[in-house]
Amino acid sequence: MADRTAVTGATRVFAILGDPVAQVGSPAAFNRLFAAIGVDAVMVALQVPADELAGAVAGLRAIRNLDGLVLTIPHKIAMAGLVDELAPNGRLVGAVNAVRCQADGRWLGDMFDGAGCVNALARSGHRLRGRNVLQVGAGGVGRAIAFAFAGQGVARLTINDVAAERAAGLARAVAAAFPAVEAATGPARVHGHDTVVNCTPLGMAAGDPPPVPVADLAPGMLVIDVVLLAVPTPLLAAAAARGCLTQTGRQMLDGQVTEIARFFGLGA
Amino acid sequence: MADRTAVTGATRVFAILGDPVAQVGSPAAFNRLFAAIGVDAVMVALQVPADELAGAVAGLRAIRNLDGLVLTIPHKIAMAGLVDELAPNGRLVGAVNAVRCQADGRWLGDMFDGAGCVNALARSGHRLRGRNVLQVGAGGVGRAIAFAFAGQGVARLTINDVAAERAAGLARAVAAAFPAVEAATGPARVHGHDTVVNCTPLGMAAGDPPPVPVADLAPGMLVIDVVLLAVPTPLLAAAAARGCLTQTGRQMLDGQVTEIARFFGLGA
Repeated sequence: MADRTAVTGATRVFAILGDPVAQVGSPAAFNRLFAAIGVDAVMVALQVPADELAGAVAGLRAIRNLDGLVLTIPHKIAMAGLVDELAPNGRLVGAVNAVRCQADGRWLGDMFDGAGCVNALARSGHRLRGRNVLQVGAGGVGRAIAFAFAGQGVARLTINDVAAERAAGLARAVAAAFPAVEAATGPARVHGHDTVVNCTPLGMAAGDPPPVPVADLAPGMLVIDVVLLAVPTPLLAAAAARGCLTQTGRQMLDGQVTEIARFFGLGA
Repeated sequence: MADRTAVTGATRVFAILGDPVAQVGSPAAFNRLFAAIGVDAVMVALQVPADELAGAVAGLRAIRNLDGLVLTIPHKIAMAGLVDELAPNGRLVGAVNAVRCQADGRWLGDMFDGAGCVNALARSGHRLRGRNVLQVGAGGVGRAIAFAFAGQGVARLTINDVAAERAAGLARAVAAAFPAVEAATGPARVHGHDTVVNCTPLGMAAGDPPPVPVADLAPGMLVIDVVLLAVPTPLLAAAAARGCLTQTGRQMLDGQVTEIARFFGLGA
């Protein structure tokens, strides 16, 4: 089933919803996996504006051969309120990036971005325990990363967001769930941190300002970007030039594809 | 772009809506065409129950990279009422099997089943002028076939449907649009006709009764079935065994793929 023309009426359908979608890596990653494990399924990207998600979801629920969804920006938090049930991590994070559309019509949401990021770091030999992390961005993926990093035993998590209350709410929630972690809001200042993670969309569009002042990045720092581009994001290019260790959005995606496929009920 | 894993976030999306969909041929036919003409697009089949079409359509309108729809049973008549505009043949027939989702958000519907059937007959050297046609089934595809056959100058069109008023309404509409054609309702009796066209779904499910008494089929008759199966339908198998000329639903589909692609704005 490696040929695209092998998409037939019997092919099960998965979709990633986002806006924009041209850059998303999930279709290629999942379609490669479906081919590898011999599943007659295809994932397509559907561009849905943020304010039309609820309507799109209502319509997608009518599609009987739709087996699962992946969510990307800007839908992760909103989708948590549109599923019928949340798996434990989705409930903890308050955002989902995967939905299993079950045969009984019920939709189950869960969040894998945190596991994807942590898995990818582990594959590269990076440990998070004891780190002092500056996290910029407290939206859907930011919530996933914060809880996952806290669960890995980071020492300190400084959360920054253009929406101050969103950062504060996330810091409070992480501190409540992981009392051993020093989680607080703070400025997007690199100084005093050994790890920087960008959870904003900055870098997706040409001309975006950097999410942190890149001149302050120092050799040996670990710089993680969730933004997925075909080329290194400006943040990661600057980080690499300054001797930092880096992880891409692509690596975070690769770190969760197998787990999401299992969540979808596929024998990956 | 021949590999299915080449379906990416940038791939434009087309869908065929029907219920059931496992048997539909459009995804394979259109995906082959997209690959042949070098268009980064994919067609997936979406199974939507009849009573949920309006809701599904409302949701699909939120999808900005959805460029077109193909409709199959049971949606062709209902979809004519859900588009923003009908092209002339869609308006004449009162049913559509293709929708172009335009960049301005307006959906334009048109009907190609009749042209597909006529084109396929022409490719096989069959002419319709002067024929006495028994047509069974007056739903969406039946309406398309009746108007197309009348446009080709058949002499007589006997229309039969389990819903008598549906057959009568179609016969009246065809007679009004093509006064030279003797269009009327009648029993599903082969006698007196040289051409039989099945526009019902009978034959899709194992154990379906035949749409006409197959014992009355005689050598040289032209028997057309719109039902699309991988193997000959029971009607066509019986017709071939009795020395009839036959045309399959697959041939009708192949007869319209290029025209629908052009309607979608693709350089086919």
